Order: sequence, then C-alpha cells, then structure tokens
Amino acid sequence: MTIYRVLAVATALLATGCAPETMDLEAERSALREAAASYHAAATAKNVQQVVALYDETALMVPPNSDLVEGLEGVGNYRFGFIETEGVELSFEILRAEVAQSGDMGWTISLGQITINRPEGPPGRDLVRDFHTWKKQPDGSWKVVVDMWNSGLPAGG
Amino acid sequence: MTIYRVLAVATALLATGCAPETMDLEAERSALREAAASYHAAATAKNVQQVVALYDETALMVPPNSDLVEGLEGVGNYRFGFIETEGVELSFEILRAEVAQSGDMGWTISLGQITINRPEGPPGRDLVRDFHTWKKQPDGSWKVVVDMWNSGLPAGG
Repeated sequence: MTIYRVLAVATALLATGCAPETMDLEAERSALREAAASYHAAATAKNVQQVVALYDETALMVPPNSDLVEGLEGVGNYRFGFIETEGVELSFEILRAEVAQSGDMGWTISLGQITINRPEGPPGRDLVRDFHTWKKQPDGSWKVVVDMWNSGLPAGG
Repeated sequence: MTIYRVLAVATALLATGCAPETMDLEAERSALREAAASYHAAATAKNVQQVVALYDETALMVPPNSDLVEGLEGVGNYRFGFIETEGVELSFEILRAEVAQSGDMGWTISLGQITINRPEGPPGRDLVRDFHTWKKQPDGSWKVVVDMWNSGLPAGG
C-alpha cells in the first residue's frame, strides 16, 4: 500500500464520513402526516384512549374559552368535546405539515368538519382548526406536545 | 512522511471533521425567546409594521371565529384587534419555548393579558393564548410561520 493509496482511502473516508447526516426529511414528513392521520382516525372513531396515547408526557393543551390542560395526566382527564357531545361526526384533512431538519420537532395544521346530528331539525356544524406541534419520541414515534384549536365560524354561530 | 503519519493525520481529520455539528441550543432558545419578546414589544407599542415584519413569507394566521389568513401579504392586510380596538393595553409573558436540535424550527406559547380601557365604566378584559411556530431565516432571524390564538375566558364573557 503506497502513501497515495492511503491518502486516497483517507479522502474517500472523509468524503463519505463527513457528509452531513442524511436525515430523510421526506420520510420524516410522511411519518408525521401518518401520526396526524392516526390522531384523526382515533378522534373520528371516538377512541379516547388512542387519542390520549398520541400526546407527549409534557403536553400542553389549549382549548378555546377554557383553562390550559397540562401534562399527560391532564390530557387523560380532559373531557373532549367530540366524546362528550352526542351525535358528533368528524372529518379531518391535513392542511400543512413541516418537520425540522433534525427530525425531532414538527408541526401540523388540520381542518376538521364537525357535524352534530340531532334527533330533530338540521344538524349543527362547526369548523375546527387543529394546530399541533409534535415531538419525536425515543422510540421514533411522534407525539403531540402542544395542541391548540379554534373555530372558523363566527362566535356564537 | 510515513504511512503511519498519514494515517494519524487522516484519523485526526476524521475525528474532528466528523464530529456532530455543535449547535448551541441554549443560545438558539434565547434567540427565539428574544424574537417572541420583540413580537410582544411591537404589539404592546401597537407598531403594526414591526409586528408584520416578524412573519415568514409563507405565514399562516388562524384567528378565532374568522377565516385563515395566508402569506405575508395576507398578514400585512390583516386588521389586528389590538390595533383596531380603541383603548387596548397588552401585557405578555412567554409560557414555554422550544427549539429543534437543528435550530431551524421552534415554537412559543405566550399568555397575553388584554385590558380594554373605556371612557366610562370598568375596563374590559381578555386573556389570549398565542401559539407560534417559528422558522429560522437565511439571515439567522426567527419569523412566525403559524400563528393561532384563542381566549382563555368563557365564550361571550
């Protein structure tokens, strides 16, 4: 092995070994969208345990016109409107989703069409905007760390 | 120069050149909190230009009970309540702030005490929760990419 051969190997090692860490951002973004879709599926199915399981230990929930809900225990005790209100049907779409270059933080914003079926008369409707920041967990899953929402319909409508 | 010397140099290069990029997360978190504090100062001073200058080109604003506001142009045309409403006084505190490991994304959640001074009678009050995700710009500054807020007081209160 000549010095030139050693240098060639060292150069090759430097070229590959020092390339910026290859985070497959497209895959991360897909994983985040899948996590958001799981949240929507769990809410649509009114499976509160599955919904709660998607929150981070340090979660902060900010319901409109109500106090802050802090930590996973707080989220576990929270009375979700879509569970508590009779006759609710949900339908969500993800509006935008972004992931940090490091793949440890992301956010999603989703639109939720809410229909409230009543025994008589026309159904009630609401349009909710769900804004979530997500934190990648040690096991690679994504969990919600901040959850705020509000309505797109006029107040008192 | 022996082969061993070349290998030693190559090893040293590999060791330093391949160390993970050192991102000073504490400094990034401080910079993000300073950006949030600038936002609060601009809003408190009712300097709408300074407020608008803190939004990203792709900003999405989600006011309660109102349509989505999209892009920097949309934000520039938005009629901020704290400007439009006479007699408003604002006071903010940052509740939590986090930055991604890569330092390109962050979020803040702040509490805003709103006092609405009126010519007669007691002042009106509101408690707003401001939830911002931020995007690091090419020049190193932080700008708001999603802005949602809601009130912590009972609806119609």
